[in-house]
Amino acid sequence: MADWTDVSSDRPTRTIWLHDDGRTVVVIDQTLLPHAFETLDLKTVEDAAVAIETMVVRGAPLIGATAAYGMALGMAADPSDAGLEAAAARLLRTRPTAINLHWAVGVVADAMALLPPAARAEAAYTAAADIADDDAAMCSAIGDHGLRIIEEIWEAKGGTGVVQVLTHCNAGWLATVEWGTATAPIYKAFEAGIPIHVWVDETRPRNQGASLTAWELGDRGVPHSVIVDNAGGHLMQHGMVDLCIVGSDRTTAAGDVGNKIGTYLKALAARDNGVPFYAALPSSSIDWSITDGVAAIPIEERDAAEVTHVRGQAPDGSVVTVRLTPAGTAARNYAFDVTPARLVTGIITERGVAPASREGLASLFPDMT
Amino acid sequence: MADWTDVSSDRPTRTIWLHDDGRTVVVIDQTLLPHAFETLDLKTVEDAAVAIETMVVRGAPLIGATAAYGMALGMAADPSDAGLEAAAARLLRTRPTAINLHWAVGVVADAMALLPPAARAEAAYTAAADIADDDAAMCSAIGDHGLRIIEEIWEAKGGTGVVQVLTHCNAGWLATVEWGTATAPIYKAFEAGIPIHVWVDETRPRNQGASLTAWELGDRGVPHSVIVDNAGGHLMQHGMVDLCIVGSDRTTAAGDVGNKIGTYLKALAARDNGVPFYAALPSSSIDWSITDGVAAIPIEERDAAEVTHVRGQAPDGSVVTVRLTPAGTAARNYAFDVTPARLVTGIITERGVAPASREGLASLFPDMT
Repeated sequence: MADWTDVSSDRPTRTIWLHDDGRTVVVIDQTLLPHAFETLDLKTVEDAAVAIETMVVRGAPLIGATAAYGMALGMAADPSDAGLEAAAARLLRTRPTAINLHWAVGVVADAMALLPPAARAEAAYTAAADIADDDAAMCSAIGDHGLRIIEEIWEAKGGTGVVQVLTHCNAGWLATVEWGTATAPIYKAFEAGIPIHVWVDETRPRNQGASLTAWELGDRGVPHSVIVDNAGGHLMQHGMVDLCIVGSDRTTAAGDVGNKIGTYLKALAARDNGVPFYAALPSSSIDWSITDGVAAIPIEERDAAEVTHVRGQAPDGSVVTVRLTPAGTAARNYAFDVTPARLVTGIITERGVAPASREGLASLFPDMT
Repeated sequence: MADWTDVSSDRPTRTIWLHDDGRTVVVIDQTLLPHAFETLDLKTVEDAAVAIETMVVRGAPLIGATAAYGMALGMAADPSDAGLEAAAARLLRTRPTAINLHWAVGVVADAMALLPPAARAEAAYTAAADIADDDAAMCSAIGDHGLRIIEEIWEAKGGTGVVQVLTHCNAGWLATVEWGTATAPIYKAFEAGIPIHVWVDETRPRNQGASLTAWELGDRGVPHSVIVDNAGGHLMQHGMVDLCIVGSDRTTAAGDVGNKIGTYLKALAARDNGVPFYAALPSSSIDWSITDGVAAIPIEERDAAEVTHVRGQAPDGSVVTVRLTPAGTAARNYAFDVTPARLVTGIITERGVAPASREGLASLFPDMT
């Protein structure tokens, strides 16, 4: 079994790992970040399901890995066919639209099907570990390909100053198993000794940038500054951004990038100021069946309270939710937007960097198209 | 003396008015909005100065009117030359870079200079009232010119549906004496019976949209929805915005618009989607001495705590400031940005609507250029 803990540091470099007992699954309780760092032990299928439902874990890859480990916890408790069915059903109910979750549960369930119950638990832990390791390897590859872009910018600057990267939302290691997607090139560059500074969009309404990205960059010691989502255009107008790297929830076969609301505005500013704009994503998030993202990617509308209210830490240390608007004010909360491929310099994937076009993506993934 | 109160409603339609005693100046305590509505009596120069310093009143026109009334309060207490000098000095110290404040104090001081002390108080109140009335008339004229743009859009829609307006920050009546600048066309259209709905950018970091614009539109019954600053691009991509109207702190002779941070990003999205983008402003905010706004308009950088912390109302009704970021996180807080004239459809002024260009503005203001 893989080594799930980073023994060289007090803090994990992964978001999910096995306890020394070889059975308990440990995750970071991301609902407490950035105001507290605590881990949570998952001992049952129900624990894993609740962790997914309550967003203790979030980010498609991490949700998938947690669901896979949830299957393993289920097999350890009840490896019968009934136990297998019950575990899968419980986990699939947590977030019905999460494609990665369905995929991961299916992978483990398929691996169980031909095995006798007595062999299932160990095989399920192995399958879950493989899913987690594969995700970490994929993000590492994205980081390696993105690193070359940052190296080129650093060389173009004559190896002086600092490479200024702007990112939006949290496509960081907290959203994956390790490395992250948009953050992977940043961590690789930082480890390679390239002076780097990250402009972290706070990413309203849920503030994943201000809370999660700022926390994880700070945890690794990567220099960064939080800015409001309004600020990036000004920074780019004044030459203070060398490149933008964002993640993606869903990218079309033609390179339109669906991502957290506000990504499109940053891409417009990047184009207007000649700043390269990249999306970093695993090829599993490319939807080869659609082309026009603005027309075809459905945009979730979430609870207006995420706009009218915000959570933060009060001076007494308590975490409270406060209302920003007048009582009773209407609000609308579109969670994602689509950045047309024409604004995207390139798509950084685990196989390399492709132009954001049908031809570009097809050349990297001839097997998928 | 002008009638400073709107007797037809419980709520004032102006932001500053005289008490029935004919001497006390009354303002809305804007620091309490949107969670409480209270007025504050200003009885002395010091009261007026503190109201400006503590942002009980904000917005250049309202600051100017408050300073003018502060001079009147000073003359009522001590109309001597020494009293005049002391009042002016105290008020000018409040916000040293506020041009409108300097102008208003100067207007009242000049009017005092040739008068015997016994005549000064009444003349100062008259001068202050004139300043307030002139501002209200100017904003009303901006509203009338902007109304015609909204009427044309309403006609182009065949008089069906709703005219969807997006605005950023608060260029509303709360920032002026009455009507506002960006909001004036909205109020005029609403009063003219045109169905209108306003997308209110919350406008991080200080949330003037979520707090002040939402409050004042709600107070007048104008339909509106608060959105995060990230959302406007998505709305425009999907045909949900008919026009954008913003205010301006400083506009160049060539039509570059300096305004609250994030305005530029909305202008980029408007251009990318064929949505008209207007700035509404009094000609007094046009700086005829500069052309290139990005190069020449200095951008104030404010306290990082405005980014890392936010104020809101807790469930128990108390107003508290909470931290959004991990403890110790660095943040940067650029307060304004510049929208190049090429992205601006037109400048709505008290004299009419001009193309955003040196020629366009000069044709409306031949006396200024």
